[in-house]
Amino acid sequence: GLHTLCGAGEPRARNGLAVHIFICNTSMVNRCLYNSDGDFLIVPQQGKLLITTEFGKMLVEPNEICVIQQGMRFSVEVFGETRGYILEVYGAHFELPDLGPIGANGLANPRDFLVPVAWYEDRQVPGGYTVISKYQGKLFAAQQDYSPFNVVAWHGNYTPYKYHLEKFMVINAVAFDHADPSIFTVLTAKSTRPGVALADFVIFPPRWGVANNTFRPPYYHRNCMSEFMGLIKGYYEAKEEGFQPGGGSLHSMMTPHGPDADCFEKASKAKLDPERVAEGTMAFMFESSLSLAVTKWGLQTSNCLDKSYYKCWEPLKSHFNPKCK
Amino acid sequence: GLHTLCGAGEPRARNGLAVHIFICNTSMVNRCLYNSDGDFLIVPQQGKLLITTEFGKMLVEPNEICVIQQGMRFSVEVFGETRGYILEVYGAHFELPDLGPIGANGLANPRDFLVPVAWYEDRQVPGGYTVISKYQGKLFAAQQDYSPFNVVAWHGNYTPYKYHLEKFMVINAVAFDHADPSIFTVLTAKSTRPGVALADFVIFPPRWGVANNTFRPPYYHRNCMSEFMGLIKGYYEAKEEGFQPGGGSLHSMMTPHGPDADCFEKASKAKLDPERVAEGTMAFMFESSLSLAVTKWGLQTSNCLDKSYYKCWEPLKSHFNPKCK
Amino acid sequence: GLHTLCGAGEPRARNGLAVHIFICNTSMVNRCLYNSDGDFLIVPQQGKLLITTEFGKMLVEPNEICVIQQGMRFSVEVFGETRGYILEVYGAHFELPDLGPIGANGLANPRDFLVPVAWYEDRQVPGGYTVISKYQGKLFAAQQDYSPFNVVAWHGNYTPYKYHLEKFMVINAVAFDHADPSIFTVLTAKSTRPGVALADFVIFPPRWGVANNTFRPPYYHRNCMSEFMGLIKGYYEAKEEGFQPGGGSLHSMMTPHGPDADCFEKASKAKLDPERVAEGTMAFMFESSLSLAVTKWGLQTSNCLDKSYYKCWEPLKSHFNPKCK
Amino acid sequence: GLHTLCGAGEPRARNGLAVHIFICNTSMVNRCLYNSDGDFLIVPQQGKLLITTEFGKMLVEPNEICVIQQGMRFSVEVFGETRGYILEVYGAHFELPDLGPIGANGLANPRDFLVPVAWYEDRQVPGGYTVISKYQGKLFAAQQDYSPFNVVAWHGNYTPYKYHLEKFMVINAVAFDHADPSIFTVLTAKSTRPGVALADFVIFPPRWGVANNTFRPPYYHRNCMSEFMGLIKGYYEAKEEGFQPGGGSLHSMMTPHGPDADCFEKASKAKLDPERVAEGTMAFMFESSLSLAVTKWGLQTSNCLDKSYYKCWEPLKSHFNPKCK
Amino acid sequence: GLHTLCGAGEPRARNGLAVHIFICNTSMVNRCLYNSDGDFLIVPQQGKLLITTEFGKMLVEPNEICVIQQGMRFSVEVFGETRGYILEVYGAHFELPDLGPIGANGLANPRDFLVPVAWYEDRQVPGGYTVISKYQGKLFAAQQDYSPFNVVAWHGNYTPYKYHLEKFMVINAVAFDHADPSIFTVLTAKSTRPGVALADFVIFPPRWGVANNTFRPPYYHRNCMSEFMGLIKGYYEAKEEGFQPGGGSLHSMMTPHGPDADCFEKASKAKLDPERVAEGTMAFMFESSLSLAVTKWGLQTSNCLDKSYYKCWEPLKSHFNPKCK
Amino acid sequence: GLHTLCGAGEPRARNGLAVHIFICNTSMVNRCLYNSDGDFLIVPQQGKLLITTEFGKMLVEPNEICVIQQGMRFSVEVFGETRGYILEVYGAHFELPDLGPIGANGLANPRDFLVPVAWYEDRQVPGGYTVISKYQGKLFAAQQDYSPFNVVAWHGNYTPYKYHLEKFMVINAVAFDHADPSIFTVLTAKSTRPGVALADFVIFPPRWGVANNTFRPPYYHRNCMSEFMGLIKGYYEAKEEGFQPGGGSLHSMMTPHGPDADCFEKASKAKLDPERVAEGTMAFMFESSLSLAVTKWGLQTSNCLDKSYYKCWEPLKSHFNPKCK
Repeated sequence: GLHTLCGAGEPRARNGLAVHIFICNTSMVNRCLYNSDGDFLIVPQQGKLLITTEFGKMLVEPNEICVIQQGMRFSVEVFGETRGYILEVYGAHFELPDLGPIGANGLANPRDFLVPVAWYEDRQVPGGYTVISKYQGKLFAAQQDYSPFNVVAWHGNYTPYKYHLEKFMVINAVAFDHADPSIFTVLTAKSTRPGVALADFVIFPPRWGVANNTFRPPYYHRNCMSEFMGLIKGYYEAKEEGFQPGGGSLHSMMTPHGPDADCFEKASKAKLDPERVAEGTMAFMFESSLSLAVTKWGLQTSNCLDKSYYKCWEPLKSHFNPKCK
Repeated sequence: GLHTLCGAGEPRARNGLAVHIFICNTSMVNRCLYNSDGDFLIVPQQGKLLITTEFGKMLVEPNEICVIQQGMRFSVEVFGETRGYILEVYGAHFELPDLGPIGANGLANPRDFLVPVAWYEDRQVPGGYTVISKYQGKLFAAQQDYSPFNVVAWHGNYTPYKYHLEKFMVINAVAFDHADPSIFTVLTAKSTRPGVALADFVIFPPRWGVANNTFRPPYYHRNCMSEFMGLIKGYYEAKEEGFQPGGGSLHSMMTPHGPDADCFEKASKAKLDPERVAEGTMAFMFESSLSLAVTKWGLQTSNCLDKSYYKCWEPLKSHFNPKCK
Repeated sequence: GLHTLCGAGEPRARNGLAVHIFICNTSMVNRCLYNSDGDFLIVPQQGKLLITTEFGKMLVEPNEICVIQQGMRFSVEVFGETRGYILEVYGAHFELPDLGPIGANGLANPRDFLVPVAWYEDRQVPGGYTVISKYQGKLFAAQQDYSPFNVVAWHGNYTPYKYHLEKFMVINAVAFDHADPSIFTVLTAKSTRPGVALADFVIFPPRWGVANNTFRPPYYHRNCMSEFMGLIKGYYEAKEEGFQPGGGSLHSMMTPHGPDADCFEKASKAKLDPERVAEGTMAFMFESSLSLAVTKWGLQTSNCLDKSYYKCWEPLKSHFNPKCK
Repeated sequence: GLHTLCGAGEPRARNGLAVHIFICNTSMVNRCLYNSDGDFLIVPQQGKLLITTEFGKMLVEPNEICVIQQGMRFSVEVFGETRGYILEVYGAHFELPDLGPIGANGLANPRDFLVPVAWYEDRQVPGGYTVISKYQGKLFAAQQDYSPFNVVAWHGNYTPYKYHLEKFMVINAVAFDHADPSIFTVLTAKSTRPGVALADFVIFPPRWGVANNTFRPPYYHRNCMSEFMGLIKGYYEAKEEGFQPGGGSLHSMMTPHGPDADCFEKASKAKLDPERVAEGTMAFMFESSLSLAVTKWGLQTSNCLDKSYYKCWEPLKSHFNPKCK
Repeated sequence: GLHTLCGAGEPRARNGLAVHIFICNTSMVNRCLYNSDGDFLIVPQQGKLLITTEFGKMLVEPNEICVIQQGMRFSVEVFGETRGYILEVYGAHFELPDLGPIGANGLANPRDFLVPVAWYEDRQVPGGYTVISKYQGKLFAAQQDYSPFNVVAWHGNYTPYKYHLEKFMVINAVAFDHADPSIFTVLTAKSTRPGVALADFVIFPPRWGVANNTFRPPYYHRNCMSEFMGLIKGYYEAKEEGFQPGGGSLHSMMTPHGPDADCFEKASKAKLDPERVAEGTMAFMFESSLSLAVTKWGLQTSNCLDKSYYKCWEPLKSHFNPKCK
Repeated sequence: GLHTLCGAGEPRARNGLAVHIFICNTSMVNRCLYNSDGDFLIVPQQGKLLITTEFGKMLVEPNEICVIQQGMRFSVEVFGETRGYILEVYGAHFELPDLGPIGANGLANPRDFLVPVAWYEDRQVPGGYTVISKYQGKLFAAQQDYSPFNVVAWHGNYTPYKYHLEKFMVINAVAFDHADPSIFTVLTAKSTRPGVALADFVIFPPRWGVANNTFRPPYYHRNCMSEFMGLIKGYYEAKEEGFQPGGGSLHSMMTPHGPDADCFEKASKAKLDPERVAEGTMAFMFESSLSLAVTKWGLQTSNCLDKSYYKCWEPLKSHFNPKCK
């Protein structure tokens, strides 16, 4: 099933987003969906998805992501227990960020986004094929007696696509200091206020950490964005315990946060040799300039709320010495 | 003296730039200059400059740079043999580049630019003080009998400033691949075509090199910018021999270039462990979207042209094997 | 009376629109209205409107449209059974579209928009004159003892205007292919996202159809806009039966649609000589990037819903032959 | 306490504003607030505020205003009966207006905005310190055992600031005619539609009135903005009676308004010598392109609604003489 | 004749301007001119011009200005000794400045620009009518046997226009301080760099001066614009002697300047009552972001150069007292 | 050989264009060219071109055009007498025009632009291969002993391309009136002034003419663009005689022009039935906002100047009858 965890805005205003969780083990048979409200960015975390679209088929496995845009019909086949995250945006499409001084190459390169090879079927479905539309947050169904994947020719570049997160060309500080997480942006859905994202998709991939004279984990901060984090595999460096693959955390705007006490102690004392960071791990963030509200499903129904999350910061001690120079 | 090496456009069109070389060992006494044509970005390479301006004094040493904008009166004191580079731009001011996904911190941070502490003198100069204006590329002089550095109060942020290149927070690839040199941009003077610089000031500071599966030096390229390189100290990695501190090289747009044969051989065989790059070195680039013409001084008078420069690429061999997989 | 049929957004957000239907046979006497929420684009379909405004009077007949902007007081006189459509937009004014390569002339030319000749009355109304304000979707009334149409002088260009749809300089494909309906845009109310309309007013006027090798009616499509169509007179080429003058149809975003089966058959077999299209007909479209919700009045109260509309497409047959070259 | 008087939009949409009234005579002790929703522009009207922030302390007295931005923790000390107005904006920060032909100086000059001198305390609070967050319009509290004003170093320019309204460099018509009130803009929070403000803060300070052949008070108008007016001290020229310091008036968009009958009579007959206007007075306006709704507190609970406000215009008489030349 | 005094850029680059002086006492008979290079802004200083254009006739007298745009044919009749100034711009048209917080009314109001009443003649000219084109700075002539003013109908708003400088709604500081001269902008020709004018036309009309605690004349400044001043009548407040109607002065960018010593003394001691400034005077400025070069005609041929201009500043004395508080 | 016919601006300023004519019957053998100055748009008129580039080979025949961008190496093989036109632009690339209300399809569709199939050769050239660079309008040569077409892999979309002019989806007036020629724009190179082209490439393809009550040929006009016309084949409707395939005409900005007398007579009397226009013909225009100067080659050396061109308009008679209604 598909559960909405948190969100802001709504489809009719063409300004907003929602974070959904999917958990399922049966495929869609003679049934397809199209989203009239916005675009889906799908992050499988367990099990692979064979997605049939009007543009062809995509096999999307964990550590890959895919985007299925507003209006495209698709049907999903799964193979056993499958789950993952979905970021839905209303009124904007995902695009590569403007790179600034990063120049013409780097981060997610356009050439690594894969689109399906064209495929169609000319198949009668006497028992009926159900086409479902998600419109203004509700589902509507129509019946027809043939497969909708009968598109034999098209042109343009409005296609679904997938991307393997290992292709990400990671850039970061190589002398000193800790860069903003925006340096890990894979895709962004821009708002109409320049420099402000409706939603960013950001990852924390395996990489070298080499900064000298620097606290290398994400530092403590209080900022103007909502941060929803998820974990595809491994251990997230800033909270190694309690944050599990398939889990999620939400840090709302303007409330300060940062690594847990454990991470702080370790990183404060570490010898700053070059070291591999996040080897075997893939954490990610859905970041938005809107402030998110959590649904009843997220707070209660799911029965998954970690009520002691805040305790990870309690052991943090003051290290301030006013006489130090 | 001040020698113009190359340039494009002209002051009257408010669109262009010039690269100058200065070599001198006497200070300006009871004499000051202001540039009515554009802004000076000064890169001392040997000897320090004590620059008196209407806003106060700045001591600028090698590995620092300073910017003195259009219209500001200044006088320079030197201490022995002094030389360096000047980038002059017409019709645009230098600013920090938009950072894109680098986010709110990184590269040259605003807080590291220093402006002079206010200073003035109320000094009569009976023998005459000479104020020189550079206007439309020519010099005009006026006499007065008092020091022009008599500004006792001002407000605003149109001030000269200096910056120490060691403060640059270096960002680069930390997984694989080689980023564009724009990732080293300190300051940019924008043209009116978005994304196209009238002139960029770019540096190659000491840093970690950690990219795996990568040819780490600047790769071979043919591009749409003019690249004037200079060296403040040390050895530039892509041409360790023949490119000396105080020297310069110009690679014009659309003609391919890259590391010399030596560098290519070494980098192709190197074991790709984390390593410090450019330790003890500071090379820089003035990069422009205009195509530069070299002056007669640069080609002949200076008697410094390296006519065998192109030979550094001759030993490069073809490594192509069509049967390789 | 005035009935709201469908809409999106709301006046307070200054972002939205509504489609209203008016049916009436009595004039407003000693009563006027002003809309504090947005602008009205009025499309009379039957009967003429004599509209008195503070700027003068306009007689608006079917095949003309008029725009009465936010805040203008107006009173309407009718002559028998009168009806039509109203498009209301919040937070944006209607303007002529940027013409792109169409150049300086074409489509609706500025010179064909007529504004009222100045007119006023200095009239006492002892029995009371009622001024009604539509504010945040509600109506508020105030009493005064004189006519509000007492404006004797003004300047500027914020005036109501009317436009005769016959003046539209129609541009279309003259070699082959079918152009987007945006090529018929009369007026547009822009959103703040470049290229995306809050609402467009588009017409399908009498014209020549000359494209060779082309399916000339609107082709089948599934798109990112909401399309509300109306008919002023005649027969709409893509649905000659069942779509009557005064009626309306709504095709929501992302659900595919196109000509009925009849139209498809005719157009597929037609000899493609130059022919007049839509002679004697005037259909139009209110097109929006917002997704519209239909009111209870539209779905039930009006008792006008055509529940078998979808059947017009059922006779469509597959013509696909995989072996055809 | 803090009472919301009127508003539009909401924090989650990052598009909106609210007008609050504060009346209190006790200080916040071991308690601070931060606003996760937007920025506060505070206009004290009676009593002074000693505001402690993470950036230092500010003493703000009537005729000064201060801005405390989203996310900043602050605590307020008062000295007796204290009251004033607050304008809160969501999704935009206040900035100085673009000056157009006013040029580089004028209106509120950047140099007159004061930021706190850095200050911190390293104070344990065994009984508990309460930190309150306003998030999506609700208040959330957290306990800690030390003062939050322990910031010993920071950089950047995201700081609270105050401004003395007497510093405003007033510009206005000096030959004839009455300029728009936007010429009195102190600060603006821009919407994403160019030229349209989410909210402007506008003042009517003491100044010369010299326009010849001109009705000098604000003329009668009907416009596209919501105007909330307040009075810090003195007598507002356009309504000398009944509008008291600490009071407020709201003129909604598109309903006409202007000076009361008294003011009209006086200004119509006045000899137009140069005269001082608003001497000893400071009225202001919160102006917005959104249409505001008044809260229940404003309409009922406060028991302060002036139900006969409209009567100030009733004595206005028609002066129109159609035969006059 | 027409003499070019100074300029920058050139017509072919569509970026530049020129300042011309005209002195003549004979009319153009059976001869007309059109400027293929750019637009003329004509400022008659003595004698009136009866200008016949394809759009009708305009009588332009001193204290009026007119603009004749690129490509319009016109012929000029004079009545005795006539002279004035012309500002020619290449690649941009004059427009009203964006008003910023001045709002919707003020400075030069659109309604005060007058366009000719349509007029034509159907006249044979057997002796030949000469049509002259100014193209790339040279004159080309063609013969025809009829009047070119045979345009019987046209539409659009690309028309010549005139403006009476007395209509200018002057806005300025009404509490204290001296505003930038841009506040007197009548018309501007924008460059492609936002906020930077190719050329502004600025006037200094009769007005009230009321600023308290202020040095009311233009203060001493050194700026990034070229300022060409002219005088239509009266006495310019900042240089009452030596600057005569019909004369001109050029202050190049970045060289400081200001009122003469006389003006300084008077204004420093003046009692700051409200006073009429520039009564009976009309001075103006052509201001440009380009740096102007003076022609040989201006420097020598005209025999009008005031070589002692700089002496007006020599009597200025230092008033600085470091001990003053 | 390659002859420059006319132009404006220059490569160093990155702002300008040139029109060249090529006439040749020998191929380039072991020789290639790259243009460091700008982009070539090549319009073959007689004979076909087999162009080898680093991206593959393109065969370009009359009625096709191709674009080879700045910096790309290419070599051309011809087959007998070959000639054509070249439009070179500096500082801008060609792109498809923004379509405005034409919508998402129409004019030149993206899908019809063809890029070469990748091709390379690994070929030694012992006798020497000459690589020529056009830099700042001069030619520079370098020798190497292998073919430069040795690129085995690349990515991105900076590739040469070709386009068949028959693919152009022609749009035009279908009720009445004559649209601007910009409606025929194939490709545009934008200047930095919005709406103003550095250069447009415009064609006049076979199409239907159906406008009623209209003078259908290009009307007489005087405009702000330079128009260089060429003819690939057939007869240009507005000048059937004297304008031959391979010829060219230049109408400079602001000098009026239009169809010849013959065309005027025919079109004025024609019965306005639907008719095919330009059947078998392909004329085109290079249109620029810069004013072009003709080279000495164009005026003299080529010996091709048609000195009686202006006579085609002499038989035009006045048809004006002031008494007509």
